[in-house]
Amino acid sequence: MHFDIFRQSMERHIRFTDEEFRQFSSYFKRVKVAKKEFLLKEGQICRFEGFVTGGCFRTFVLNEDGFEKVLYFSSQGWWVTDLDSFTNSKPATQWIQAMEDSELLLISKEDKERLFAEMHKVEKLFRIISQKALIALNQRIWRNHSLTAKERYLHFTETYPEVAKKLTNVQLASYLGITHEFVSKIRKTIAGNRE
Amino acid sequence: MHFDIFRQSMERHIRFTDEEFRQFSSYFKRVKVAKKEFLLKEGQICRFEGFVTGGCFRTFVLNEDGFEKVLYFSSQGWWVTDLDSFTNSKPATQWIQAMEDSELLLISKEDKERLFAEMHKVEKLFRIISQKALIALNQRIWRNHSLTAKERYLHFTETYPEVAKKLTNVQLASYLGITHEFVSKIRKTIAGNRE
Repeated sequence: MHFDIFRQSMERHIRFTDEEFRQFSSYFKRVKVAKKEFLLKEGQICRFEGFVTGGCFRTFVLNEDGFEKVLYFSSQGWWVTDLDSFTNSKPATQWIQAMEDSELLLISKEDKERLFAEMHKVEKLFRIISQKALIALNQRIWRNHSLTAKERYLHFTETYPEVAKKLTNVQLASYLGITHEFVSKIRKTIAGNRE
Repeated sequence: MHFDIFRQSMERHIRFTDEEFRQFSSYFKRVKVAKKEFLLKEGQICRFEGFVTGGCFRTFVLNEDGFEKVLYFSSQGWWVTDLDSFTNSKPATQWIQAMEDSELLLISKEDKERLFAEMHKVEKLFRIISQKALIALNQRIWRNHSLTAKERYLHFTETYPEVAKKLTNVQLASYLGITHEFVSKIRKTIAGNRE
């Protein structure tokens, strides 16, 4: 079932024969992570790139006062890693924590390189995935520059309703770069308009 | 000379034989763009991905009041495109303008696909380039969440001194997401500390 979700998601980019997918997916290890467990802590070397098959993760940094700033949420169908730490074997600057009981498929850097050497198709797959992720980050930077806080709130809750439901006001505010008082205010205005 | 800069930059990621590089670079067209000329306007389909061999470009969006918000600067050695428009043949949301007389090497979407089919190495090259760009954008999102306006100003001017020199306070402030009055204030404080 977990590998079905994975195959479906990968085949939006590239088609595999059954034999090819068996070879490709044999490099991924299935891992369960309990709610609140850390997949990565600041200072560790990130040894995995993970495809989330269930649950949800929160990637954040801690500022000097010990407050967390949420950078990303990763639910089913998304990838999770500290890409700089994973690619360049540098200490991670980020924390990755399960927000609920979660499952994912992990691959190591060495196995990813082996896959690239074995299967040209996988190099193309990751080229396309990186390109899509780049477009998504470009759009996020565009939204941060161009949209009001309320518009960004609405964009997030309408685009990712399932993720939004799992978040506290504080977590969502941190991700959007606004105060949680402002998130409460927007939520009240929207509830008011619906009455 | 322009192709030397290009080869040097690509070979930081992957090695080419002379024959391979000749084949690879034959797909790129050398283009000159005069100061203030637009490489792309909002609403057009972006038909190119460009490697800057000289000069500097500014990518921006126009908000409802007609004010520009600067998203990226691209000087020698950087790529410039509207990736979503280029990849998905959608109308561009961005404007790209030369800030000075500039030169670049352009490739079309069709030629890029042809290159991928002809040379496996090029698929690897663009997978690595996309990955590096992703890491850079991740870091920018991290800085926007974690650093003060002054720290972001210092990071930019220290990391890209040559680009910073070319910018007005308004352009730099727009890129950093702060007011230009605040940039003036930071510049005065720094000048004061140096006396």
